[in-house]
Amino acid sequence: MGGDNAPEMIIRGASIARVRMPEVHYLMVGDESRIAPLLEKDPDLAAVSSIRHTEDLISSGEKPAVALRSGRNSSMRLAINAVADGEAASVVSAGNTGALMAIAKFVLKTLPGIDRPAITAFYPTRKGEACMLDLGANLQCDAKNLVQFAVMGEVFARTVLGIGTPTIGLLNVGVEELKGHEEIREASAILRSTDLPGEFVGFVEGDDIAAGTVDVVVTDGFTGNVALKTAEGMIKLYAGFLKDAFRGSLIARLGYLLAKREITNLRTRTDPRRYNGAMLLGLNGIVVKSHGGTDGFGFASAIEVAADMATHQFLQKITDDIDLLGEDYAQGAKKAAD
Amino acid sequence: MGGDNAPEMIIRGASIARVRMPEVHYLMVGDESRIAPLLEKDPDLAAVSSIRHTEDLISSGEKPAVALRSGRNSSMRLAINAVADGEAASVVSAGNTGALMAIAKFVLKTLPGIDRPAITAFYPTRKGEACMLDLGANLQCDAKNLVQFAVMGEVFARTVLGIGTPTIGLLNVGVEELKGHEEIREASAILRSTDLPGEFVGFVEGDDIAAGTVDVVVTDGFTGNVALKTAEGMIKLYAGFLKDAFRGSLIARLGYLLAKREITNLRTRTDPRRYNGAMLLGLNGIVVKSHGGTDGFGFASAIEVAADMATHQFLQKITDDIDLLGEDYAQGAKKAAD
Repeated sequence: MGGDNAPEMIIRGASIARVRMPEVHYLMVGDESRIAPLLEKDPDLAAVSSIRHTEDLISSGEKPAVALRSGRNSSMRLAINAVADGEAASVVSAGNTGALMAIAKFVLKTLPGIDRPAITAFYPTRKGEACMLDLGANLQCDAKNLVQFAVMGEVFARTVLGIGTPTIGLLNVGVEELKGHEEIREASAILRSTDLPGEFVGFVEGDDIAAGTVDVVVTDGFTGNVALKTAEGMIKLYAGFLKDAFRGSLIARLGYLLAKREITNLRTRTDPRRYNGAMLLGLNGIVVKSHGGTDGFGFASAIEVAADMATHQFLQKITDDIDLLGEDYAQGAKKAAD
Repeated sequence: MGGDNAPEMIIRGASIARVRMPEVHYLMVGDESRIAPLLEKDPDLAAVSSIRHTEDLISSGEKPAVALRSGRNSSMRLAINAVADGEAASVVSAGNTGALMAIAKFVLKTLPGIDRPAITAFYPTRKGEACMLDLGANLQCDAKNLVQFAVMGEVFARTVLGIGTPTIGLLNVGVEELKGHEEIREASAILRSTDLPGEFVGFVEGDDIAAGTVDVVVTDGFTGNVALKTAEGMIKLYAGFLKDAFRGSLIARLGYLLAKREITNLRTRTDPRRYNGAMLLGLNGIVVKSHGGTDGFGFASAIEVAADMATHQFLQKITDDIDLLGEDYAQGAKKAAD
């Protein structure tokens, strides 16, 4: 029931995802009187769907703590409960992000060895695709948190992006060993000493995000949130400037018409709907947050990521890799806990 | 003598700046045997220039502490000394940023009421131009530092960008009062209670940087550095994708040729050379750092900013505005000092 155009957009997303992944079953949690008529119009989707009725929902403006306390019968809570109970392999929501994180943390808890969940997204780069975390769940992070994020990101890159040996970088203000906060330098030292299936390359800078220098960019939630939104803002600015340029003269308009097909391909390549879905990683359950303003195509992308993670044993792989962190991590973790 | 192509690029920059600002005099600090022949070829520039000879220089790889200790006769040090001695109104360098900051801090000291200098840049936005600070001088900042940055940025926006009442925003992960670190929330409370010539609008997010939501974006040096480099990386990515699109087919190439003039205008509008120059604000002297890889056109922009700041009593205006900060600032400052 979450997002700007629910439940229509959600059902439409499932309908698109069904064609791509016919093996997925959908548990639609929300107002049956609104969901059922939509499913009736889509018998193929209806055949692989069931409805869990509730009229309660969490509004987009609700504070996370209030949502957690009073939303026990909300569609969001019941959907997360279904994951906790083993009824659903993952949950996809276009609703209130803070509420989703708060309820998911409370109901699902974190995975063994993970102290705090992180928000992750993936995006197109000059070289292909990459992911970054944390994007806002944890404003301040110690070395141990950052190392855990590195593990979560590396598993995500293998599982969803299909990268055999993902490269991992810690976001910093320079690439030299002595740069940055103590937490980052300590995380770097720990990651250098581990034997993860990914390759830790050291520090990276802001421009490495779009360049695709590494497959996994690890940072605290404050910096990650600012970097992500700065990047989004720049894309909008540049696209706006480009629109102005093509509208600047009649002959430029004609030029646009000639180049339109290629420019449309460019738009497809960077279509935010293809990269819709922020993953709440580190929880003992798969939780994907769709953008509230996306359409069915975008929501289908989020469903695909959630299905990919479930199919490829995402949670088990994180637990496996945490065990590979070794002695320096254990000491660093002990130090952090002191 | 700093930058990738000194002293040729420096002299070329002064030559371009001379035409725009005939009243400026240049004190060229460096190797006379290399500078004099270049000035001989440009008699108009030679007429408003003098040379201070030194063969010492600080290399781009030199550590700031070493540059400070052993570079006492370097061109960078002598140029900064000239500002300290009142011989020059400002210094413009394309050399080693860390060394420039270290030497300038040591020689010039900070302005009364300013605890730490900050690196500032300005850039094109959807609405015009805006500036952001700190971009890397201070990785961790308390509320007092952030408030001082706000003052410095606000004066810069009035002095160089020509904005009568600049709007100021604190970079955060959300716009609500309760978001973010304690330092940011405290800085916000102080700024709300002050009576600056600028208008404090509260928190802004990463996408507000390019949107031009505010004229002055205030943040700590870690976040600012990452945001700036992320934005630069996105521009490169988008420009690369666009190039690919125009090269994607013969007809797209033809389209590019037709739209070329407008696209060139777009490039001019966003030309990084127009926005060359990072200002080291908060020092008791005007110090502008040019990009080392820029050309004469870019270096001329940096000279213009330095001249603008000197002409418009930048330093005095900061001192004036620090006095306007009022009681909450004094208490916050006291608290921060405890």
